[in-house]
Amino acid sequence: MNAAETLRLHISKTTNLSPEQFDYFYSQFTPLSFKKGQAIISEGDKVEHEYFVLNGCLKSFYINDEGKMFILQFAMPTWWASDYNALYSGNPATSNVDCITNVEILRISNTDREKICKEIHEVEYFFRWRVNRSYVATQKRLLLLMNSDAKHRYEELMKQYPELYNLVPKHLIAAYLGVSRETLSRLYHS
Amino acid sequence: MNAAETLRLHISKTTNLSPEQFDYFYSQFTPLSFKKGQAIISEGDKVEHEYFVLNGCLKSFYINDEGKMFILQFAMPTWWASDYNALYSGNPATSNVDCITNVEILRISNTDREKICKEIHEVEYFFRWRVNRSYVATQKRLLLLMNSDAKHRYEELMKQYPELYNLVPKHLIAAYLGVSRETLSRLYHS
Repeated sequence: MNAAETLRLHISKTTNLSPEQFDYFYSQFTPLSFKKGQAIISEGDKVEHEYFVLNGCLKSFYINDEGKMFILQFAMPTWWASDYNALYSGNPATSNVDCITNVEILRISNTDREKICKEIHEVEYFFRWRVNRSYVATQKRLLLLMNSDAKHRYEELMKQYPELYNLVPKHLIAAYLGVSRETLSRLYHS
Repeated sequence: MNAAETLRLHISKTTNLSPEQFDYFYSQFTPLSFKKGQAIISEGDKVEHEYFVLNGCLKSFYINDEGKMFILQFAMPTWWASDYNALYSGNPATSNVDCITNVEILRISNTDREKICKEIHEVEYFFRWRVNRSYVATQKRLLLLMNSDAKHRYEELMKQYPELYNLVPKHLIAAYLGVSRETLSRLYHS
């Protein structure tokens, strides 16, 4: 599937755009390729774009003062990623986004998203529902982190995203779950 | 300030509605009063509404199988609350919303919100930005929970919402921070 078709199918699950509306919507995006390990957003950057993943896998992460990494999100095909706090506020990035694999993405700027949301009501509807779903997913994850032990969190993650098991190195899954590499190892074999 | 003015001021920070648009928007809401301790949403309920707080304070919370309570959110004046997972999915509520104080709210149904978002583009814009902000706040809280000790989480909460200190009983602040009442006591006196 080419980039336009991937995006068209993704949007069509939420709203209907006419072919002309979709073509105009798609024209706001820039296709880009990155190599495994490349950084897309680094802490301190001015953030002006968000990213729709076509192929591969991104991670967004935070590194604390002691150098420990925390994973906020993995982004697989048809997922969106950015440092949304920085993107919306104009403040410098506090988190990072980089490539776990080679990655193809579509990039759109905050300015162009706002412009097209204003021009096409259905696009505004699409983005509202995209963030509604992200908000609910983040609330669920918060509750899981407060309420569950590492074993349960690991099982939930693998149930929800079984493809992560093969795609993502184990130390990154540990950083997502907020456990040590050793704890995760025990979970694999229990 | 009366209910309509409170809502009008709240909306005007995000978008401009004409007086006629606002009156129509406001007509979608039902004002309601609840007493301290009353439940608004209980686990297992069908959830059809969300709530805009005019006066007082709500909490949304989850109780696990061992009877331990986790607070997802406090909702003070001009904050919104519901079980959004249940509201958006149609599944029964997995969390609860009740009143920490006597409360006055404006209630809107999911159906009416969707209708008015479709009818008035600026209303869709308002709700998109409301959830953008909630999403970013929840991501920040997630990171704080993964990365910080209880003392830092307590200090951040009090810096962000100093009014909670007097409004909310200490055992509920402990349930929000994910610490025991005893740990919180130590933080107060440290």
